[in-house]
Amino acid sequence: METMKGIIQRYQHQRISLVEAGVTRHRSIFSGLRALAMGQPDSQLSKPEVVIIHDAVRPFVEEDVLLRVVTAAKEHGCSDYDLEFGTECLHLALKYCHIKAKLVEGSPDLWKVTYKRDLYAAESIIKERISQQICIVMDTKEDEEHVGHHLKEMLKNELSHVKVTSVALSHTGRDLQQILLEQCYNFVCVNVMASEFEETQKLLDVLKENNLSVLYPVVIISVHFLDYKLIPLGQKMENLMQIREFAKEVKERNILLCGLLIYYSQDEQKLQDSLRQGATIIATLIKERNSGLIGQLLVA
Amino acid sequence: METMKGIIQRYQHQRISLVEAGVTRHRSIFSGLRALAMGQPDSQLSKPEVVIIHDAVRPFVEEDVLLRVVTAAKEHGCSDYDLEFGTECLHLALKYCHIKAKLVEGSPDLWKVTYKRDLYAAESIIKERISQQICIVMDTKEDEEHVGHHLKEMLKNELSHVKVTSVALSHTGRDLQQILLEQCYNFVCVNVMASEFEETQKLLDVLKENNLSVLYPVVIISVHFLDYKLIPLGQKMENLMQIREFAKEVKERNILLCGLLIYYSQDEQKLQDSLRQGATIIATLIKERNSGLIGQLLVA
Repeated sequence: METMKGIIQRYQHQRISLVEAGVTRHRSIFSGLRALAMGQPDSQLSKPEVVIIHDAVRPFVEEDVLLRVVTAAKEHGCSDYDLEFGTECLHLALKYCHIKAKLVEGSPDLWKVTYKRDLYAAESIIKERISQQICIVMDTKEDEEHVGHHLKEMLKNELSHVKVTSVALSHTGRDLQQILLEQCYNFVCVNVMASEFEETQKLLDVLKENNLSVLYPVVIISVHFLDYKLIPLGQKMENLMQIREFAKEVKERNILLCGLLIYYSQDEQKLQDSLRQGATIIATLIKERNSGLIGQLLVA
Repeated sequence: METMKGIIQRYQHQRISLVEAGVTRHRSIFSGLRALAMGQPDSQLSKPEVVIIHDAVRPFVEEDVLLRVVTAAKEHGCSDYDLEFGTECLHLALKYCHIKAKLVEGSPDLWKVTYKRDLYAAESIIKERISQQICIVMDTKEDEEHVGHHLKEMLKNELSHVKVTSVALSHTGRDLQQILLEQCYNFVCVNVMASEFEETQKLLDVLKENNLSVLYPVVIISVHFLDYKLIPLGQKMENLMQIREFAKEVKERNILLCGLLIYYSQDEQKLQDSLRQGATIIATLIKERNSGLIGQLLVA
């Protein structure tokens, strides 16, 4: 019970009541139903018309399936076929409540997470789902626009199945708010010539107000372009290694911050090569979403 | 048939004969058995005593299971229980050959790779299996021994379930040959002060003679320590970025080469911090085994 309370608090669920489990599956279900029927002092929920009983070991349940189950529960009463080929729960419903049940088809993603291999699969499925959109954050300074747009094109090439958008932080936060509503978990912050992480810091402030990273980790890649003809590499590097301190701080909020240094040359061909390398690294960091590399500086 | 021939050639299998599939599973099995019984002009195999028919969609079959199946096939003739609860193949064996079959228990890893989630799980299982051992390659120079042994201890702490060994390349290749026989797929090459990738190049030469990377990718992390009081960072960085050229070359041989620059200070506390960061990065690169970061320089 303490573990479950901890989870509910950590993920800030508002509409959950806990009931102690019974010694068998059916006793647990009965306890849950009784709590719903009678109400409980600490219950956040009113007495429901329809109750969905879900096997928690099948974590990938879509809202669409739940909707179809509720609709079917309201509309249907009988189906001999379902009773013939269904599970024991359908027979119990008939025997004790004289209610005939209806089977609603689920999706292949509703499989049972049982073995270690299922945990691996579940992890990969979640990573894939939250890697569907990347937002490039850049300012409207001329330099930034130039390399930022190049990088955007490269990323589109590298990740053809991913939606790549861009916003400018200086245009108030409206665009960014829209992107946060779309549950985008991946950000690329373009900082040209500035070693002070200005754009990255602004983005972190916006994310702090928002609770996006509560459920899944948000990846932020702070990209720094370096025109090596203009700035000494040693000094720049020392500044950029501050990324480790930033990363440590924001990791506690489930934000995975990583630094990427891209050699920046006015030579168009060299710039394209560096950006292509950079896009490959960004794609990897977003796909793997591994906190082990967070806070490191990668050089493209 | 062309695809299968390509796979056999690519992975250098020596004892495989191909037979065209039939329109049903049983016709395919029959074609295979007929080829074995009659021999074929291009067959590499002699007529066998025992034939194992394996469902290729279950890739994780251990040699131990195969051994038990062969032993059971030689020893047993009857088991009514197996025939009662077995699959249709057992009935076919009885009906047409008057042979009673014996069931041998498999492992949970023998599951069917069917859905996309199964591919994810299979990938993770393979990655886990080939990440069980790390070999640290270092020379016997005093500096190298000092930081090398520190790094080894850090890696042992970071990856408590992984076997961490070390070899010196200068002591001929005997130790290394032993480690290659143990199928170690992960190497950390320690280069102190040298920006010329000496140790890394030697290791690449040994791996070139060996065919280890044919089946699974070998990860090599070329670690370079930098005492920042002694060497200008800019110059060092330019040298180390050669890693990208090396990486490109060896990737064609299925070797994933990555560079790691560790700030090296005589201050013992700072050295420990840098090594701990380095160990975390190394653990991530080995665990993820992702070619997207290969050839990049990471800075700890």
